[in-house]
Amino acid sequence: MTDDERAIRQVIETWMQASREGDTQTVLSLMTEDAVFMVPGRPPFGSEAFEQASNAMAGMQIRGISEVVELQVLGDWAYSRNHIELTVTPADGDPVRRSGYALTLYRKEADGRWRLMRDANLLTVKG
Amino acid sequence: MTDDERAIRQVIETWMQASREGDTQTVLSLMTEDAVFMVPGRPPFGSEAFEQASNAMAGMQIRGISEVVELQVLGDWAYSRNHIELTVTPADGDPVRRSGYALTLYRKEADGRWRLMRDANLLTVKG
Repeated sequence: MTDDERAIRQVIETWMQASREGDTQTVLSLMTEDAVFMVPGRPPFGSEAFEQASNAMAGMQIRGISEVVELQVLGDWAYSRNHIELTVTPADGDPVRRSGYALTLYRKEADGRWRLMRDANLLTVKG
Repeated sequence: MTDDERAIRQVIETWMQASREGDTQTVLSLMTEDAVFMVPGRPPFGSEAFEQASNAMAGMQIRGISEVVELQVLGDWAYSRNHIELTVTPADGDPVRRSGYALTLYRKEADGRWRLMRDANLLTVKG
């Protein structure tokens, strides 16, 4: 495994851990300023809308596992395909389980850090 | 617009036109051998399953528009974000309209041609 691959896997792991801990600021530090998120059924959105959605989830318990299925580094760019299992439990509600795949692009920025820049999230609610 | 950008836009246009015409062989020629397709609710699949699904749609009328929202070339790799509107009409059924975004990766292969290699398709059925 190259240093770049290791660094990107660390971004993914830190992202999941910060999400579990409700640490939105850390998650935001792992994405580029121009990051774009794509999910089914709504237009793509950026880091500001991501932050708002994360803040709206304050108090919910988030448990998630992201398994890297494929990771390719192309110079200062990279992509990964991940399989994700996510359980979100509202403070006074039943857990909602979602699972599926994501296609994610990363960019190595001027400070030498890899950050998420494009993300297509195909997770669906599990029956 | 660079030659590479023009070539990738041509791949997208030819793909849509061949889909409309039910010309699966042309669509297959526009993807790499290891292409992976991702849609919500099922595991990723490759070119063989793509071909089977296309053959199963023989006789259906397909009308589609794919608008390039973003296109970035990174050496011999590229990605695009497209907005797609698709209407599929079975021979003896009502039209089904689907729309949404896709995140697609392309690779320039040894023969100098750009081909689709990874595709995350977030289209949903329109009510």
